[in-house]
Amino acid sequence: MEKIVEQTLLYDFYGELLTERQQQVYESVVLEDYSLSEVAEELGISRQGVHDMIKRCNHTLEEYEGKLHLVEKFLSIREQVRRIKQIAATYQAQEITEISNEILEEL
Amino acid sequence: MEKIVEQTLLYDFYGELLTERQQQVYESVVLEDYSLSEVAEELGISRQGVHDMIKRCNHTLEEYEGKLHLVEKFLSIREQVRRIKQIAATYQAQEITEISNEILEEL
Repeated sequence: MEKIVEQTLLYDFYGELLTERQQQVYESVVLEDYSLSEVAEELGISRQGVHDMIKRCNHTLEEYEGKLHLVEKFLSIREQVRRIKQIAATYQAQEITEISNEILEEL
Repeated sequence: MEKIVEQTLLYDFYGELLTERQQQVYESVVLEDYSLSEVAEELGISRQGVHDMIKRCNHTLEEYEGKLHLVEKFLSIREQVRRIKQIAATYQAQEITEISNEILEEL
């Protein structure tokens, strides 16, 4: 999986367990693609400080996944629901397609 | 939801985030139904001490759910997959039934 996709997924699942400041920095750099220098300037800390925070956040998020494996579980379910949706189309089972779409939106 | 079902679900999802000792006590009392006194004796602590540990564990698990809502999400998906399975039966869509069962086992 691409690094950025993986980081986004991990953050989606476990981001709320980071501190508010960590969330703010992580969102700016990883999700909104601000440069380390821009974020550093805004927060009044060094570029290296921002870099270290991101590294620590990634480590924390990976640690949660290492313990809980919820991203792994949800990716597997997403794949299975997509298969259901494909098969439902061949049966023209509209209700199943609709529920599948609901699940995929939640995941 | 019944308290014990809720506790079991929360522990399934977030139990790995408790300390090893907390896990041990929680499993004995909540999942395996040992009495507080039995567990207290085995660990060489007071009955009140065990009681407090369980209370703290419940609080911690509920805090994780309050932030991540993964049990809530999981229950909702389980309900939807069950509906898919019911509808699949009316279409005699065996492949969909099988995948639904796979998902329900994982959840």
